[in-house]
Amino acid sequence: MTPPYYAVIFTSVRDAKPDDGYAEAAARMEELARQQPGFLGVESARGPDGLGITVSYWESEDAVRAWGRHAEHLLAQRAGRDRWYERFSLRVCRVEQARSFSRPEPGEPV
Amino acid sequence: MTPPYYAVIFTSVRDAKPDDGYAEAAARMEELARQQPGFLGVESARGPDGLGITVSYWESEDAVRAWGRHAEHLLAQRAGRDRWYERFSLRVCRVEQARSFSRPEPGEPV
Repeated sequence: MTPPYYAVIFTSVRDAKPDDGYAEAAARMEELARQQPGFLGVESARGPDGLGITVSYWESEDAVRAWGRHAEHLLAQRAGRDRWYERFSLRVCRVEQARSFSRPEPGEPV
Repeated sequence: MTPPYYAVIFTSVRDAKPDDGYAEAAARMEELARQQPGFLGVESARGPDGLGITVSYWESEDAVRAWGRHAEHLLAQRAGRDRWYERFSLRVCRVEQARSFSRPEPGEPV
C-alpha cells in the first residue's frame, strides 16, 4: 500500500457481557468489510484493560463513506451504541507516509 | 481535539523476551512524548496474539517529525529494530474527521 490512502481508527471501551452477540457481529463485520470496494486491510488489538483499537485501511474517502453507510453495518453501529460499547471514538484519516520493518530471518542475507 | 490534526499509527509484533528492557523503555517513551510540543494524546492496545497498536496524536506534522528525531527516541527506535520487534509498520496520517460516543450513565438525562 503506497500512500496516500485512508485509515479509519476506531478506539473503544467494551461493556462486555456474556453472550451479547459482540464476537459474532465483529467477525461478520470484518467479513463484510473485506468484500467492500476499496478495502485494503484491517488490524485489531484489545488489551487486558478493555481498550480496543481497530484500524481499517481503504483506497479512498468514498470507500470509507460507502462502508459507513452499508445497511448491515448501520445495524451493527446501532447495536454498538445500545449494547456493546461504553464509549468509542472514530477517526477518518488520510495516510500520508508509511514505512515498515521486518526482522531478517537468522541466516538470511541482510 | 478538532480536526485537522495528526495521528501516528504504530502497529507491531513483539519478539518478547523476559527482561529485555521493553516495558521500561515504552513507559519512558510515553513520558517523553507527553513532554513534546504539540503532543495531544496516546492510546495503546496489545492483544493476546502479540499484535500491538499504538496511536499517538499530534497538533502538526512538524510536531510528529520533531518527536521522530528526538535523540532518546532515536536510541529506542534502534533498540526496537535490534531487539524488541519482529516487525512493525508506522503510518503518519492527517486526521480529517473525528467523532465519539459515550454511553449516558444510568439515570442521566439524554
